[in-house]
Amino acid sequence: MRIARFSSEGTVSFGVVEGDAARPESLTLHVLSGHPFGDLQPTGQVLPLKDVRLLPPMLPNKIVAVGRNYAAHAAELGNEVPEVPLTFFKPSTAVVGPTENIAYPPFSSDVQYEAELAVVIGRMCRDVPHERVPEVVFGYTCANDVTARDVQQREGQWARAKGFDTSCPLGPWIETDLDPADLAVTCTVNGELRQAGRTSQMVRSVADLIVHITEAMTLLPGDVILTGTPAGVGPLNVGDEVAVSIEGIGTLTNKVIKRG
Amino acid sequence: MRIARFSSEGTVSFGVVEGDAARPESLTLHVLSGHPFGDLQPTGQVLPLKDVRLLPPMLPNKIVAVGRNYAAHAAELGNEVPEVPLTFFKPSTAVVGPTENIAYPPFSSDVQYEAELAVVIGRMCRDVPHERVPEVVFGYTCANDVTARDVQQREGQWARAKGFDTSCPLGPWIETDLDPADLAVTCTVNGELRQAGRTSQMVRSVADLIVHITEAMTLLPGDVILTGTPAGVGPLNVGDEVAVSIEGIGTLTNKVIKRG
Repeated sequence: MRIARFSSEGTVSFGVVEGDAARPESLTLHVLSGHPFGDLQPTGQVLPLKDVRLLPPMLPNKIVAVGRNYAAHAAELGNEVPEVPLTFFKPSTAVVGPTENIAYPPFSSDVQYEAELAVVIGRMCRDVPHERVPEVVFGYTCANDVTARDVQQREGQWARAKGFDTSCPLGPWIETDLDPADLAVTCTVNGELRQAGRTSQMVRSVADLIVHITEAMTLLPGDVILTGTPAGVGPLNVGDEVAVSIEGIGTLTNKVIKRG
Repeated sequence: MRIARFSSEGTVSFGVVEGDAARPESLTLHVLSGHPFGDLQPTGQVLPLKDVRLLPPMLPNKIVAVGRNYAAHAAELGNEVPEVPLTFFKPSTAVVGPTENIAYPPFSSDVQYEAELAVVIGRMCRDVPHERVPEVVFGYTCANDVTARDVQQREGQWARAKGFDTSCPLGPWIETDLDPADLAVTCTVNGELRQAGRTSQMVRSVADLIVHITEAMTLLPGDVILTGTPAGVGPLNVGDEVAVSIEGIGTLTNKVIKRG
């Protein structure tokens, strides 16, 4: 099931996306009452997807991201795969949706894309054992872990390099029925393929990461985990259109503009 | 003015603390309606402070913290003062109030205290120029940037080391009328003095930090900035009582328990 969050006539709602993703004009939204955790409550209203504005599919309280989780990506930046997963936060203020722009910040001259599988948490949880991970996962969406590479290299911790406004596009919707073990993850810039990996190349699986993160901290419904990026990262420029596609989910497209 | 957040008879409210902090039994809470940003709306109700449970004075959307902002502390851990401020996030799920415990997490065997001045933001802001910093600051409180030092040293980024549940005690209340330039910051463990610094020893001032952080990201009302810890950090053990005191604000006391 695909769950989207959208605004229509000034109201923000969740809805279930129905139809064939290959024919975008055919897609409809079956509007829900309230949030999509637990039992869904359809209002009965159905809207053409093209008539609404898609928002980030979730507004997370926190985003926990993982660095160097694909060996080939670690190597391309001259890094080792870390012995323990390298975890950092992106703030909620960095989140933008599939129709919003990435605003190139003035304090960087090397902003880069990083296509990633994002996990959306469905239940408050801590100390999740491996076998119970499926119970706490609500679904999956596409993410772009946009990174000011020069700032990342200059500053020891990455709050500014990976936490600036618009540095966390999420969308277009959440797919709730998906096995994350071996999905194609691609990134294109202006239609040219830049990243093409598979989630099976992750050093730590989705389940491993959730066990590791929840050993330390409580995750809340709507929290998001970014699972690392495959090889092929590179620069974005003002005017570019960057698209992250994940097999079984869809495509998240954002334009890059100059920050106003 | 001292603004506290508290629960009483199942209701969470903000209130203005009145009375002499040296005589805690004399303190009263003048209850507010709604939140304390903008014009205060007193309900007229007054409660003895001893009859309520103080909560974290704010539930921040995000906490932006700064590492190595006191030269003597950087040196004691064998680090240089960084050329640019070293910024990282602590999550909202790490926040506890002045009556809650620090739960020693099972994945560390070297949890340490770090007494810090915390800045509470009062207005949504980005790209704040130096001269307008006072407009965006709501007030100041005490923080303990509790850190799993062994995990911090093992993992390249600090999400788990500084983001575990209960790793961000805040309180006891927010002082809105305070010049942060030269305040005594102390930490005691079981009554023994362990840290004694002054905010005048900060490498970057509160204003410098707000300019630097908001160059990258939007701060929201209630967001918190931790300004770094003076020299003297050291271990906490289960059973300890740790107290952070800041001149002009008050004392934040927490016990350390084993995580259940």
